[in-house]
Amino acid sequence: MSASTTMPAIAVYPGRADTVHLTELPRPTPGPGEALVRVRRVGVCGTDQEIIAALFGSPPTGSDELVLGHEVLGVVEATGPRTDGVREGDLVVATVRRPDGCPACLAGQPDMCVWQGFTERGIVGAHGYMVERFVEDVRHLVVLPPALESVGVLLEPLTVVEKALRQADLIQRRLASWAPKTALILGAGPIGLLGALLLRSRGIDVVVVARRPAPNPAAAIVEGCGGRYASLRETPLAELAADLPPFDLVFEATGVAQLAFEAMGVLGSNGVLVLLSNTGGDEVAPVPVARLNLGFVQGNKVLVGSVNAAHEDFTAGVADLGRFEELWPGLTARLITHRLNGFADVARIAGGIDEGIKAVIEFAQ
Amino acid sequence: MSASTTMPAIAVYPGRADTVHLTELPRPTPGPGEALVRVRRVGVCGTDQEIIAALFGSPPTGSDELVLGHEVLGVVEATGPRTDGVREGDLVVATVRRPDGCPACLAGQPDMCVWQGFTERGIVGAHGYMVERFVEDVRHLVVLPPALESVGVLLEPLTVVEKALRQADLIQRRLASWAPKTALILGAGPIGLLGALLLRSRGIDVVVVARRPAPNPAAAIVEGCGGRYASLRETPLAELAADLPPFDLVFEATGVAQLAFEAMGVLGSNGVLVLLSNTGGDEVAPVPVARLNLGFVQGNKVLVGSVNAAHEDFTAGVADLGRFEELWPGLTARLITHRLNGFADVARIAGGIDEGIKAVIEFAQ
Repeated sequence: MSASTTMPAIAVYPGRADTVHLTELPRPTPGPGEALVRVRRVGVCGTDQEIIAALFGSPPTGSDELVLGHEVLGVVEATGPRTDGVREGDLVVATVRRPDGCPACLAGQPDMCVWQGFTERGIVGAHGYMVERFVEDVRHLVVLPPALESVGVLLEPLTVVEKALRQADLIQRRLASWAPKTALILGAGPIGLLGALLLRSRGIDVVVVARRPAPNPAAAIVEGCGGRYASLRETPLAELAADLPPFDLVFEATGVAQLAFEAMGVLGSNGVLVLLSNTGGDEVAPVPVARLNLGFVQGNKVLVGSVNAAHEDFTAGVADLGRFEELWPGLTARLITHRLNGFADVARIAGGIDEGIKAVIEFAQ
Repeated sequence: MSASTTMPAIAVYPGRADTVHLTELPRPTPGPGEALVRVRRVGVCGTDQEIIAALFGSPPTGSDELVLGHEVLGVVEATGPRTDGVREGDLVVATVRRPDGCPACLAGQPDMCVWQGFTERGIVGAHGYMVERFVEDVRHLVVLPPALESVGVLLEPLTVVEKALRQADLIQRRLASWAPKTALILGAGPIGLLGALLLRSRGIDVVVVARRPAPNPAAAIVEGCGGRYASLRETPLAELAADLPPFDLVFEATGVAQLAFEAMGVLGSNGVLVLLSNTGGDEVAPVPVARLNLGFVQGNKVLVGSVNAAHEDFTAGVADLGRFEELWPGLTARLITHRLNGFADVARIAGGIDEGIKAVIEFAQ
């Protein structure tokens, strides 16, 4: 370790818009059960942009700054005592949410937190991972095989759809048999595309819809895994669905609240629609309430919201990232369309990254 | 048996409004696996009124008439060969839906039918129970203890909420622990009130909301089982909910589609909202789509439609009717506010029964 007692990090002042800046944090030392992780790469997502816009986010108690970043890939640099299962040199991803004392959290399901008093690293009440090094309880670390170095930074967003599919599967144990054959994914951002890879890896027919007409990089990824891409600008959702068999599974990942309700209208009997977008604002829209209600009742349909992910979604995601590489070598990494340069590119993070699919920040080792 | 070869029944010509009339059916004989049931009492419900108004319903193949009635209580008068479990003199209720060949039906879940090609006695493609006698496969009969004679006609509507609660419980196996403490029921018709009895019998705090201010007969039943009744005319739903802890469970049974969506806004984290109303028409209403979507996502909430009921809901319902009598002697029977007189009161059925809670038709024995 160097003699320096501080290290750089990228932070905002939550509640004040556009305050991305470099800061310094004390360099941490791992205690019992903890590992020191050197950050290699951090993904930037819509939540980060919302925090930067001061629509969301809060600092740790006692601080006015919040270090950004919750999609991390790093390498274990040192471990404290009692850190079985994690070793120096391991490639790791850290989970995001930390429990409060609610019944769900106590039962080991912080992603189902009821009191909403959790913290989330890089989002709510705890520093994130856009920092040179961090310390974490090894129970919140997931080890990845070295072969997944190029895609491991996508594990955290992948867990969003891992949880979505797990919730759908858990819910559908109500049926004598549940073997989804057809799926619709609304949105071709990272969540929608990782959802497409996940469902295609399960052999499900997948249609991904988004605004932009093909060809575009997202459409190419959908087609690369054998899915179908359609532009909502060219064909409205109801019209598109009318030409297809009913959807067993729908993932909503556009961030457009009205589409969540439009999607209710194209779900098949006994189907599950999983809502995955955090939609701010107060938008009120006309909804065909009688027709949607009737369809849900007569078709025994389910709508479920899903947020965050459980530890098991991270471990399932590691296996699935490996499976994606086997099925479609190199395809997953094509989601990463922008690479920013460590602490030097703070201005580009601050300015927002509107094009492409996923931007990641590379931290020099 | 009498020498007559025909018997009276109450029928409509589906597709033509207000055609309730007396008709004659051939008197049936039970074959192998079948029982002949003498009808004692049949409930009249909203679906019957919709069929009378020609909004719904279809006759059996080869007929232009449909015998009404799907909420029946009767007594087994004779059995064919191979009718284990059902004996002459047994008090019985018949289930309503008969399977098509879809995967759910083949797996023994016709209430989850995917192809929607089922028949339903008294509703879709099969004669109902407003008839002197009927023959049924004993697998579609449920035997009740004689002590439930006064309330047995309510078993079929009770199964609607039995299935609703069963679906919620099945879905919530996704949680480490699910022990609902608070419930909201929208609607104080038979379904809402039977829902209140069911959830109260499970020790759940229940609030029932409906239009009419208390005091009224429905409010008295809610209060009789220890629930709380509130009038939406006096207090809007959102205002009412703001003063109460979050609802773990919501049943929507008003038939007002917009309320289904309002209910989404008062559901607690990890809660389940079950939609139970068949809402016709094309109503479009303004819905706060962003707020509802966000609440569902961040709270991992579930909305599920539920229709019809499985055989196990009938057997569970028999046990629960008995439990209701133990907990609140005589209370359940107070749902029956009108008694019509067999084949003589056809004009009153035709005219509609708008007041009170539940009308039943008594058939002289």
